[in-house]
Amino acid sequence: MLDKIKINELIDIVGSSNVLTDPSELMLYSYDATQLHRVPDLVVIVHSAEDIAKIIKFARKNNINVYPRGSGTNLSGGSIPADGGIVIELNRLNRIIDIDIENRIAIVEPGVIAATLDSEVAKKGLFYPPDPGSLAVATIGGCVSEGAGGLRALKYGTTKDYIIGLEVVLPNGDIITTGNFSSLRSSPGFDLTHLFVGSEGTLGIITKIAVKLIYPAKTKKTLLVLYDSVVKAGTAVAKIIENKIIPSTMEFLDKITINAVEDFKKIGLPRDIEALLLIEVDGEPEDVETSAKILEKVCMDVGARSISVAKNDTERMELMEARRAALPVLARLKPTTILEDATVPRSKVPQMLEKIHDVQDRYNLMIGSFGHAGDGNLHPTILVDRRNKEEMKKVDMAIKEIFNYCIELGGTLTGEHGIGIVKAPFMEKEFKKEGLSFFRDIKKALDPDNKLNPNKIVCTKEVHLDYI
Amino acid sequence: MLDKIKINELIDIVGSSNVLTDPSELMLYSYDATQLHRVPDLVVIVHSAEDIAKIIKFARKNNINVYPRGSGTNLSGGSIPADGGIVIELNRLNRIIDIDIENRIAIVEPGVIAATLDSEVAKKGLFYPPDPGSLAVATIGGCVSEGAGGLRALKYGTTKDYIIGLEVVLPNGDIITTGNFSSLRSSPGFDLTHLFVGSEGTLGIITKIAVKLIYPAKTKKTLLVLYDSVVKAGTAVAKIIENKIIPSTMEFLDKITINAVEDFKKIGLPRDIEALLLIEVDGEPEDVETSAKILEKVCMDVGARSISVAKNDTERMELMEARRAALPVLARLKPTTILEDATVPRSKVPQMLEKIHDVQDRYNLMIGSFGHAGDGNLHPTILVDRRNKEEMKKVDMAIKEIFNYCIELGGTLTGEHGIGIVKAPFMEKEFKKEGLSFFRDIKKALDPDNKLNPNKIVCTKEVHLDYI
Repeated sequence: MLDKIKINELIDIVGSSNVLTDPSELMLYSYDATQLHRVPDLVVIVHSAEDIAKIIKFARKNNINVYPRGSGTNLSGGSIPADGGIVIELNRLNRIIDIDIENRIAIVEPGVIAATLDSEVAKKGLFYPPDPGSLAVATIGGCVSEGAGGLRALKYGTTKDYIIGLEVVLPNGDIITTGNFSSLRSSPGFDLTHLFVGSEGTLGIITKIAVKLIYPAKTKKTLLVLYDSVVKAGTAVAKIIENKIIPSTMEFLDKITINAVEDFKKIGLPRDIEALLLIEVDGEPEDVETSAKILEKVCMDVGARSISVAKNDTERMELMEARRAALPVLARLKPTTILEDATVPRSKVPQMLEKIHDVQDRYNLMIGSFGHAGDGNLHPTILVDRRNKEEMKKVDMAIKEIFNYCIELGGTLTGEHGIGIVKAPFMEKEFKKEGLSFFRDIKKALDPDNKLNPNKIVCTKEVHLDYI
Repeated sequence: MLDKIKINELIDIVGSSNVLTDPSELMLYSYDATQLHRVPDLVVIVHSAEDIAKIIKFARKNNINVYPRGSGTNLSGGSIPADGGIVIELNRLNRIIDIDIENRIAIVEPGVIAATLDSEVAKKGLFYPPDPGSLAVATIGGCVSEGAGGLRALKYGTTKDYIIGLEVVLPNGDIITTGNFSSLRSSPGFDLTHLFVGSEGTLGIITKIAVKLIYPAKTKKTLLVLYDSVVKAGTAVAKIIENKIIPSTMEFLDKITINAVEDFKKIGLPRDIEALLLIEVDGEPEDVETSAKILEKVCMDVGARSISVAKNDTERMELMEARRAALPVLARLKPTTILEDATVPRSKVPQMLEKIHDVQDRYNLMIGSFGHAGDGNLHPTILVDRRNKEEMKKVDMAIKEIFNYCIELGGTLTGEHGIGIVKAPFMEKEFKKEGLSFFRDIKKALDPDNKLNPNKIVCTKEVHLDYI
């Protein structure tokens, strides 16, 4: 714990109302969407990059860890104060500084909610494509730090494809600007902007973000395709792309997920199907019509049970909302939800789905799978009770099997959820000894005292966290 | 110079036919497209990442600089052995290892010529968009290292938008893999792939490259728009984008460039116009027609003298070839060509063009301007005689004025040509003291002995090079 003198130093920087020490308040900053937790020693609410610079210098001098935090929606333990120390709450840095229509660039602070950026740029006729499931609560700072993806990533890419410049407070307290805030085409020297995107607050704390905007598509069409077999649905995904159709969205839900969605949302999905694909195409009206026709043919050829098209925007939104509800509805089935982010080459989706089902059967676990099938980005979600020690052991083994197979297929530990603390132990499997050592070198060079969100991405020691 | 014993050590690694010491051969490796030069001590031709690892270890032990090099087409002095040492010639690492049609990924070695990758993937119905002017000779390794752009970048982005994974030999001799070679959606931890893209061989030597491919557009339409005023042409560029048209290409040529092109290519361009725009739209046939109509209207509204549409593929290619010839034809006008890469926000293109013309008049210099106007990426090309010392002094002052104004407008030192040695002195202007110091920290952390392409991007000492 921090002593009174040190707490007073922090109060001098940000004011007493911005330093939280009450245990009930601290508890709120102890966990993220992984449901793992550790209570921080203190929370400091900041209002400027200068505040952060001062706190970082204070923390360095006093050998205290600091953890930047937005809404805490991340799914890999990236924002948990796992080694104790100070949480820096960034949500009050929430100004949209500029939306430059002419050059199609927005400049925002990290605490802006993703959905707010979405709607504000939409008002000006522009479009910010990244749309993680947690859109309505996640901050842009969190999205950038975790490299968030979303439902539209198949056609439009993920957060990293839209970040053109950053302001960052470095571990030494320097405030730097990377990239460019007004020109889309800029490439002087090392790409420092993308070094910070996805770095989960381990190399610096992002205080300003310049994002590229695009024009929205004129029309959208949404199809719901039902399958009697998971493998058929996976095959359809590959066949659609082979037919040169790039939908904006191509989502997969398995039977467990479909039933959970139906339990809570009651939108009329048949409970006996094994899989569904939710496909959205967008663009110019004629192209959308042409693509939708090809899509329907391909899906039927692969053996779809049925295909229905959303009749209007309300129906379209309802289907998308149902997909977005996948994680929260699954989370209601059992006390503990462990969501994974196994990503494989698109052509290997059927194999990966078979593997997940095999693991589920062998370990007798409840696994609901859904995800961005078009990107090969699957979210097998293990539903368990953390108090059941036997079951939790099986979960550990199941996760290891899933990730080993995923990497064997040429896949990766994460497509959009970050490495955080939960996947850090798997990094060597993906990047080998030399690769991981290079990650360590980067971290050591930029944060030599290892004070900034330590033990995330590259773990320096084993940390055991409990589920909340 | 290296003594005989050391040369024999290198011969042991790569064989005697791959170690060049003959002065006339060394001369060929002394310069790049900047026309600046310094003769290396030795050239080693490598055939594998393992060769490179051994040479790097040898160089480190013997305190010798190493300079990776492809075709040497770069325009910022990035591949010149400016401080003396060994050039590592990478052109023999030129295999296309795989073109994965299902997942739309190609894996290539750095010595593959950009145009070869283009045509090989085209044979499989796929498309690799980045197309720098030097496409026909530039290597992919060079394009990645310099962050090359091209004529299609407005719609399709630059090289960095297509690189998903790399194999890199680090300054310590370790061979690592970054990103992912089979999955398009991968984001574990720091984006090390993009740390190397654009790093000009200062942080490591790239030995394998995984690129994302897309499907080619079905149709193209190319328009040639003539203007009596440079500012009108610049205004048209902004207006086109405001009308929600994103052409694949939107190139600008000024009067000097137009006349140089006409001198050597004789395609019938009127010699009295002040500027032309070469605009290409691509996509589905209906969209291309619609966009072309809007384009024509916008261009006329801004006051175009005339608009003509390429009647067929031959005419289309002829226009594109004329644009690609801009630099080589300008280079024929005077003994020395100094090409810049000033990039500004798209909305500031007219102001930047005015400034260039003003500089040209005040210093009485011949400056031909052309470039990717849609991206705000302009190439003012100063045509001089290096032997005229008075003129060269004016060139220095003109360049400083152009870049200072460019940064004032929110622009950047380079949109696609890299920093190399010629723009390194301007880095502090763009990134301030703290920002530049961070660049230095990265370089120092990864290449502590400063042996890998030293003095590029971040300069550690003043180096004077002569024009060849």
